[in-house]
Amino acid sequence: MSSVVQNLVDSNKDYAEKFTQGSLALPPAKKYAVVTCMDARIDPISAFGISLGDAHVIRNAGGNARDALRSLIISQQLLGTQEVVLVKHTGCGMLTFQNADAHGAVKQNLGDAAAEEIGTLDFLPFGDVEQAVKDDVAWLQASKAIPDSVRLSGWVYEVETGKVRSVV
Amino acid sequence: MSSVVQNLVDSNKDYAEKFTQGSLALPPAKKYAVVTCMDARIDPISAFGISLGDAHVIRNAGGNARDALRSLIISQQLLGTQEVVLVKHTGCGMLTFQNADAHGAVKQNLGDAAAEEIGTLDFLPFGDVEQAVKDDVAWLQASKAIPDSVRLSGWVYEVETGKVRSVV
Repeated sequence: MSSVVQNLVDSNKDYAEKFTQGSLALPPAKKYAVVTCMDARIDPISAFGISLGDAHVIRNAGGNARDALRSLIISQQLLGTQEVVLVKHTGCGMLTFQNADAHGAVKQNLGDAAAEEIGTLDFLPFGDVEQAVKDDVAWLQASKAIPDSVRLSGWVYEVETGKVRSVV
Repeated sequence: MSSVVQNLVDSNKDYAEKFTQGSLALPPAKKYAVVTCMDARIDPISAFGISLGDAHVIRNAGGNARDALRSLIISQQLLGTQEVVLVKHTGCGMLTFQNADAHGAVKQNLGDAAAEEIGTLDFLPFGDVEQAVKDDVAWLQASKAIPDSVRLSGWVYEVETGKVRSVV
């Protein structure tokens, strides 16, 4: 058993012993979805004030809206959410490389077969975090799969201070 | 300002006032990534014992491995993670519909243009949660973009009890 798995088993035992919220409904009680980055320095539940059962939390590299579209459609069309809060963050890894770097790493570390498997995959890096928030919100606004009735807002979380600031 | 945004602003003010972890490194300290569902009833940080800065957390509808591939490649090739913990859960929304239902909802609620925009998008529903965990871990094992050196494990989280159980 790896130390990661040992920690999961031990920590979860403590969590389950104190767990009292086993009767929450499937649809998010506050009818919203958060899209944010997978970054290890973000705890969306605590930093963004999400109570258990209140909101879907979608996380991927960069907090990318396009990458989240499948999940957002399910969230809205099948589970009733009506608002999307998109949060990118300072110091994001996606600011530090370009597509060619990621494809180069795959080819060098994993070989030609891996490079062929991922083809022209867009890793969706970006050059400016505030602009990327604006671009993603604009993309959601323009998407016909996200109805105009869905409220959208875009934010930057500062990993240095724990603060969110409004962008759009 | 929506009540969702008001809650975000108010809660984050409290969080930032007590925030002391502004100097964490970008790469996850414990070199692992968790893939789990966006479900509102899951708090991965608390339930799976993740300390801030320790692990990437990727969340999407169903905790789907294929949907997470872009993020996992970045996590491993550019940010040094070496282990993936995949956690699906009881009572998942993905057990309750089929692709035709999601496509039907989009067409009925959003119209032909929206249906055309998403084309043949696979919403990735599944029929049995334990089998889906096994299938996703097998898919990661088979993927050339995930090197054999990456440790993989698959779990089911019980939203009724707060417990995780090992599947594979």
